[in-house]
Amino acid sequence: MKGKITLKHISKELDVSISTVSKALKDSPEISQETREKVQAFAKLYNYRPNNIALSLKNRKTKNIGVIIPEIVHHFFATVIEGIEQEANASGYNVIICLSSESFDKEVINMEMLANGSIDGFILSLTKETQMKKDYHHLVEVINQGMPLVLFDRIADEIPCDKVVIDDEKGAFDAVNKLIEVGCKKIGLISTVDYVSVGRLRTQGYLKALIKNNIEVDQNLIVKIEDVAHASEMIAPLLDCGVDGVFAVNEAFAMTAINLAHEKGIKIPSQLSVIGFTDGELSKYASPALTTVSQNGHQIGQEAARMLIEKIEEESEVFQTKVVKTKLIVRKSTKN
Amino acid sequence: MKGKITLKHISKELDVSISTVSKALKDSPEISQETREKVQAFAKLYNYRPNNIALSLKNRKTKNIGVIIPEIVHHFFATVIEGIEQEANASGYNVIICLSSESFDKEVINMEMLANGSIDGFILSLTKETQMKKDYHHLVEVINQGMPLVLFDRIADEIPCDKVVIDDEKGAFDAVNKLIEVGCKKIGLISTVDYVSVGRLRTQGYLKALIKNNIEVDQNLIVKIEDVAHASEMIAPLLDCGVDGVFAVNEAFAMTAINLAHEKGIKIPSQLSVIGFTDGELSKYASPALTTVSQNGHQIGQEAARMLIEKIEEESEVFQTKVVKTKLIVRKSTKN
Repeated sequence: MKGKITLKHISKELDVSISTVSKALKDSPEISQETREKVQAFAKLYNYRPNNIALSLKNRKTKNIGVIIPEIVHHFFATVIEGIEQEANASGYNVIICLSSESFDKEVINMEMLANGSIDGFILSLTKETQMKKDYHHLVEVINQGMPLVLFDRIADEIPCDKVVIDDEKGAFDAVNKLIEVGCKKIGLISTVDYVSVGRLRTQGYLKALIKNNIEVDQNLIVKIEDVAHASEMIAPLLDCGVDGVFAVNEAFAMTAINLAHEKGIKIPSQLSVIGFTDGELSKYASPALTTVSQNGHQIGQEAARMLIEKIEEESEVFQTKVVKTKLIVRKSTKN
Repeated sequence: MKGKITLKHISKELDVSISTVSKALKDSPEISQETREKVQAFAKLYNYRPNNIALSLKNRKTKNIGVIIPEIVHHFFATVIEGIEQEANASGYNVIICLSSESFDKEVINMEMLANGSIDGFILSLTKETQMKKDYHHLVEVINQGMPLVLFDRIADEIPCDKVVIDDEKGAFDAVNKLIEVGCKKIGLISTVDYVSVGRLRTQGYLKALIKNNIEVDQNLIVKIEDVAHASEMIAPLLDCGVDGVFAVNEAFAMTAINLAHEKGIKIPSQLSVIGFTDGELSKYASPALTTVSQNGHQIGQEAARMLIEKIEEESEVFQTKVVKTKLIVRKSTKN
């Protein structure tokens, strides 16, 4: 039999109703054991790929973990995957990675593909589209069918599963507090638009640090960038209005600020201290090297894998949310 | 039946010899059709995972492509994967990624896992260990069993399959030629040790460009770095001996040279022109922005996916090696 097998094929071939096939595949006690076995063997034989998880997962440990991430050209996700690999390999698990490329449909397709018997559990970071739609049916379906799922970084509170996050607000708060400590009086913020959750949280951290230190919030010092292509032209006016400190919610924005400062002859850190977020290659090779908030991606990956493997092997029903601490890495873009 | 099923389990359960099971799984005509069907249905039912490719691949198109790369925190591989995704998705294929993490064993394990019915073909870049061992049995086995394979970047001539490479030597030649064109007389090379094939090829390109322009090769101007941790201390003496041009075989080495020049008060590009290799984030955000050789990773990925899908769908026996051209991206780290 060529091509993809459907419920209809099985129903016709074995001369039972589609509903029977569906229930038999789900191992429903409504169906006789004989029919169940027949349907299941046929489905296996012809590699039937249902829209839900293959049966009797508990007996069919694959020792594979499926990871779905929204993008790959991104240092943070790459380090998370390294952490997952390390922890998984140490426990005898392989890791299979799929990209959702920020597409809801790709997330659904990849989940269906992997859930069909290839893996024992998922580690996933949601696409922006999924967060915007708030459509989590594919995740809930997988959970309901007994497959463990751990969400990291881009999570949704509504989904009943284990989660690993970082404290974005606290990370931003610490960064801005550091700028204040080294003597900055006029601190600019370079952030994303508010619908990006990490940008929103890091903006809150900035505001809280100012308020705690009795510094008046000046909206003119807050730049929210939607399109990265226009980052330079949006950041330039901020540097022109005499800021002595800048906190950027990602590496690229911080690097753009540093490069603009070089062009304008503003000395870093003596005239301007800069702090970024995400401790990637850009921060390390910046000139001067960038003080930044590390998200500890490696640790996030390790924690996610550890939680998932525990669920796979122990099948507990208690869900946890683990908060991985951020860490301020002090380099040369801030005054002593 | 819990745990991983072996040939032994099947043999015992169905009361036939292991050799019969093995042959039946390979659909050998030596075995009666009845026994073949019985063994195959049993194997499917209990998710038997053989060390070779599952049967009747031609009837079981999964529409999945497996990609195995040596590392993920690497801009080049990330862009190759983007290219693969784009081309594969356009043709209705999903992409499954595994990391070999520069380990021969992980490469073998991942290939075995994916080859077992999860995918229709492989796109792979070899680990350094595989290249050093020259052990390609796992690749040859997959090819012999009719599964298409495309190698990219880190290839081996001995493996009969389609390949996608860039012309490393030509890319380096063009870069050094550019330095000579803008007036550099004393050009340093920052390379890797010779057993890294790309470093060796790019070194050859450097030498050829000097020779073609009648510039004497000075071994004192050639630095070969084995351990990245010592890059700074190895590059510093090169800058101290009065070079006016530097070609580095990767981004990180080029950035290290730029940062050392800043520290030493050497002006770029007026006193020193610098060219790197790989057009990643570091090059774009460098100050001054780095002139570099782009490897066109996206195009490599697209070509690899195109070649693989062609083989999956048309099963030709003719193998090609596609050379993707490098491109010199001129920015501000070189004189006009």
